Amino acid sequence: MQYGVIVAGGKGTRLWPLSREAKPKQLLEILEGRSLLQLAYDRLATVVPAERLYVCTGARDAGAVRQHLPDLPIDNVIGEPIGRDTVNAIGLCCAVLGRDDPDAVIAFVTADHVIEPVPVFGTALACAFELAEGPRRLVTFGVVPTRPDTTLGYIERGPRLGPDGAEAAVAYEVTRFVEKPDAEHAQQYLDSGRYLWNSGMFVWRADTMLAQLGERLPESYAGLAAIAAAWDGPDRARILESTFGQLVAVSIDYAVMEPASVDPDVDVVVVPLALDWIDVGSWPSLAAVLPRDEDGNALWAVTVLVDSSHNIIVSDDPRRTIATIGLHDMVIVHTADVTLVCPVNEAPRLKELVAEVARATGTRCL
Amino acid sequence: MQYGVIVAGGKGTRLWPLSREAKPKQLLEILEGRSLLQLAYDRLATVVPAERLYVCTGARDAGAVRQHLPDLPIDNVIGEPIGRDTVNAIGLCCAVLGRDDPDAVIAFVTADHVIEPVPVFGTALACAFELAEGPRRLVTFGVVPTRPDTTLGYIERGPRLGPDGAEAAVAYEVTRFVEKPDAEHAQQYLDSGRYLWNSGMFVWRADTMLAQLGERLPESYAGLAAIAAAWDGPDRARILESTFGQLVAVSIDYAVMEPASVDPDVDVVVVPLALDWIDVGSWPSLAAVLPRDEDGNALWAVTVLVDSSHNIIVSDDPRRTIATIGLHDMVIVHTADVTLVCPVNEAPRLKELVAEVARATGTRCL
Repeated sequence: MQYGVIVAGGKGTRLWPLSREAKPKQLLEILEGRSLLQLAYDRLATVVPAERLYVCTGARDAGAVRQHLPDLPIDNVIGEPIGRDTVNAIGLCCAVLGRDDPDAVIAFVTADHVIEPVPVFGTALACAFELAEGPRRLVTFGVVPTRPDTTLGYIERGPRLGPDGAEAAVAYEVTRFVEKPDAEHAQQYLDSGRYLWNSGMFVWRADTMLAQLGERLPESYAGLAAIAAAWDGPDRARILESTFGQLVAVSIDYAVMEPASVDPDVDVVVVPLALDWIDVGSWPSLAAVLPRDEDGNALWAVTVLVDSSHNIIVSDDPRRTIATIGLHDMVIVHTADVTLVCPVNEAPRLKELVAEVARATGTRCL
Repeated sequence: MQYGVIVAGGKGTRLWPLSREAKPKQLLEILEGRSLLQLAYDRLATVVPAERLYVCTGARDAGAVRQHLPDLPIDNVIGEPIGRDTVNAIGLCCAVLGRDDPDAVIAFVTADHVIEPVPVFGTALACAFELAEGPRRLVTFGVVPTRPDTTLGYIERGPRLGPDGAEAAVAYEVTRFVEKPDAEHAQQYLDSGRYLWNSGMFVWRADTMLAQLGERLPESYAGLAAIAAAWDGPDRARILESTFGQLVAVSIDYAVMEPASVDPDVDVVVVPLALDWIDVGSWPSLAAVLPRDEDGNALWAVTVLVDSSHNIIVSDDPRRTIATIGLHDMVIVHTADVTLVCPVNEAPRLKELVAEVARATGTRCL
């Protein structure tokens, strides 16, 4: 059967101070009152029945996830006791879901992006599920690039899948995965028409991925198998806790996708996503999906602005007024205990500031 | 006898949003926990006995004034039912204090500035009190200028007072009052050594000023006399309310000082103040008296600053952290309901912003 898993990991540094360690960005209800997690759930639910939707997240966030997704069955939150990167998060889900359903096919999606239009995504997802039934096949999604982005990894596609692929699917063999390129290469990739952005979203059979792990990362495989064996018994928490933390943290790209893409025994294919794929992982990128006024200010706050343009102003308090005059290209974020002000072009340095806040004030504002 | 009156009028626009209509800047406890009003009181009290210190202010602020100055006798707040500019505020005090004490000599000081060192001011004030006993004499204070300021009025001084003045006093005849000059004239005034900044502070006998009003502003004189006559009776509030609002609003400079300075029958003299006279009526000028860090940030707030310089950051909430990175030359002011952010060099336009806030949100944030 088909399953959908939202992999909602990661810390809240890049949208600090609105996102916090205890409130990662996927839980911010900033997009017309919906969180990125809810939007990801809604997208998956257009294809996968609700009872087979799961969220894989840090154990600490499990309660918040359940609050955001009240329709999610209580057992459908798979909590990692500690972060061990994507290969172990995804491997854990494959081991757990595969234990009851040897034919489980699982879509792994992220909750870091706004994706529109949703029906285009739904069609691609349905195709990917069909494709994933192929033997030793790993399906990934590649977003059709619209700019020479140097902050993303790329996928070089090879020939289009022949008639043995699903009829409706437009999909390609993967030639190789490429790390974040420099500007010159990014432009070449864009111009060539053969490169797609690596979306970090995948579909595969649980047994296909577990076989890959057994081959490429045998210690993780053994640990995850032990956890799955204990999953339905009284020792789940103890085994999970003692075993998961021992696994080597490594990304699914590095551990599996890249070596598999050059392994003739594995069939790595990519389904193109021709849609808007908007990272909202930083203030400037979030601004792209916020309402804008006629002066280009991205606003999610009560504001009074005079001669002010291209600012990003966010407040979680509807009783607060943020007033500016002669202000341009600034980020202002107001939260219950912290106010952030920085130029838009300094926003990429936010991590530095958060580190300094931690040094100066302890964990109070993190 | 000698009296001291702090004239504490004015709205709170220039230090908005910290100052408000209900909390003018004189009441902000921003200078090591003391308000400008308290500092002005302390200065006067070095020369004038506490029981003869008064505050003249808008009736609405009378309660707040009493809270700030618990030692002030309850009757020593003279509340104007409505603002009618300085000539009527000062005239009201002369009429009221002069009714019981025909020899009253009154110092009128403002609470808009930080003045240091205080003993220099005290010495000048004591001299001015002596000088003010002279017949038909109006004494004003002129600050020795330190820059070609174009935002202040100037006083051109004439000859030094002869031995008929008080022995200890350094004082000069006033040649003329000059309005705010352009940059060229301001530089000439500074270079000449003959010009002083018009401080808006004065000392005179109540009867001398009332005689001037009788001559130059007979309607105000009559109205103020009627109010003083009713002051100790049951009709004080009614007469004050009905009469004061009818008076023509005009400044003491325009109504009295300027014409008197060219009237051979009046003796207008100026006592120089060679001291720091710091206007704290705008965010940039307030910053001059706030603590600064090594990067030139003027801070009255809990802050975490990375690569940030020459900002002015003020918060009335000690639990709030204001965090910035790569930020320079900005004003950030956090209050319970409003956050202001603007470049330092746009601060002079604050009035525009406040007007827009009033238009957009009504009186809520004023």
